[in-house]
Amino acid sequence: MAEYNTANPGLILASASPRRRDLLTQAGLPFTVIPSTVDETALTAGPPEVQVRMLAQAKAKQVAARFPDHWVIGADTLVVIDGRVLGKPKDRTEARAMLHRLSGRTHTVWTGYCLCCKDVAQSICDAVDTKVQFKTLSAGEIAWYVNTSEPYDKAGGYAAQGLGSTLIKRIEGSYTNVVGLPVCEVVETLVRVGVVRRSSP
Amino acid sequence: MAEYNTANPGLILASASPRRRDLLTQAGLPFTVIPSTVDETALTAGPPEVQVRMLAQAKAKQVAARFPDHWVIGADTLVVIDGRVLGKPKDRTEARAMLHRLSGRTHTVWTGYCLCCKDVAQSICDAVDTKVQFKTLSAGEIAWYVNTSEPYDKAGGYAAQGLGSTLIKRIEGSYTNVVGLPVCEVVETLVRVGVVRRSSP
Repeated sequence: MAEYNTANPGLILASASPRRRDLLTQAGLPFTVIPSTVDETALTAGPPEVQVRMLAQAKAKQVAARFPDHWVIGADTLVVIDGRVLGKPKDRTEARAMLHRLSGRTHTVWTGYCLCCKDVAQSICDAVDTKVQFKTLSAGEIAWYVNTSEPYDKAGGYAAQGLGSTLIKRIEGSYTNVVGLPVCEVVETLVRVGVVRRSSP
Repeated sequence: MAEYNTANPGLILASASPRRRDLLTQAGLPFTVIPSTVDETALTAGPPEVQVRMLAQAKAKQVAARFPDHWVIGADTLVVIDGRVLGKPKDRTEARAMLHRLSGRTHTVWTGYCLCCKDVAQSICDAVDTKVQFKTLSAGEIAWYVNTSEPYDKAGGYAAQGLGSTLIKRIEGSYTNVVGLPVCEVVETLVRVGVVRRSSP
């Protein structure tokens, strides 16, 4: 049994991220995946919470333009430390440098999300931040981790939910936000706006 | 490729919990599951951190007695609010009462773990606590959640990683500890003691 009912014609996740798909699936939401083709490197001005909101909005609106009667979820995640934004590492050298910087310290993960439906001219965008504290990593641990496939398609060069779970000592804030989508906030908004309804017993 | 190598003859997880199995699998550890048959309700004296350590130790030692040359991981998780321990709800009425109590407030999740090997007379036990803040739940949300299968085999009557992810606003501390095993601490200890070794590049 689906745990939620959606208003027709259903919800679209405008993201190719398998982590976001898994989070929404675990949360019990029915949805379809239609990734946007927005260039993530095109918007890099302003504070991180503005960047992630703008990118989330750009992604959602691009897909909403093609499916104007659907509600679309866009999202973008950034890792910030020392006032510097860490994107997805291109290679081992970049991944190693990112992990060195994160080692033994606390950084901030920002995820912006945008929920929009073109036909009813509605759009809700927000951003959520979570503090993440890494354990102190030895050179051997960093060498081991950059040799796995995990760092390379993730902001900051690590996965909170995979092998990277062994690198994180503690967090403050939303955990799902670190993985890529603050599901408590997103589902609460979808329910409030009436896009989804909890299935009745 | 396995991400870790274990000292022969390998690691045993003395728990039937699918969440703990998933956490260790995601963390890349090779292990076998051999659940203990320790009665979880038998040890309920003392502060929660003592209770979870004692139960984790009892579970690990019971299985270690059968496999004295293996390293065994035992664990136990409790939810604490208002100085009261919430176990696994027996029925809807209990689950509903637990969720009412957790709604809109912060509680503490304690997980105790014990790593031991009988043949080398070694045993390391510790307990980790995480603060978890719930969103304010409406009567409808509670009715919806107790109607799913999720609350019934979990301390406190909720799952941090499933549908319950939509109930949690924020946490402070280890996320995996809330799911059932603080993997950063457990893997760090296993590496330090020499039970597992990260695979070299």
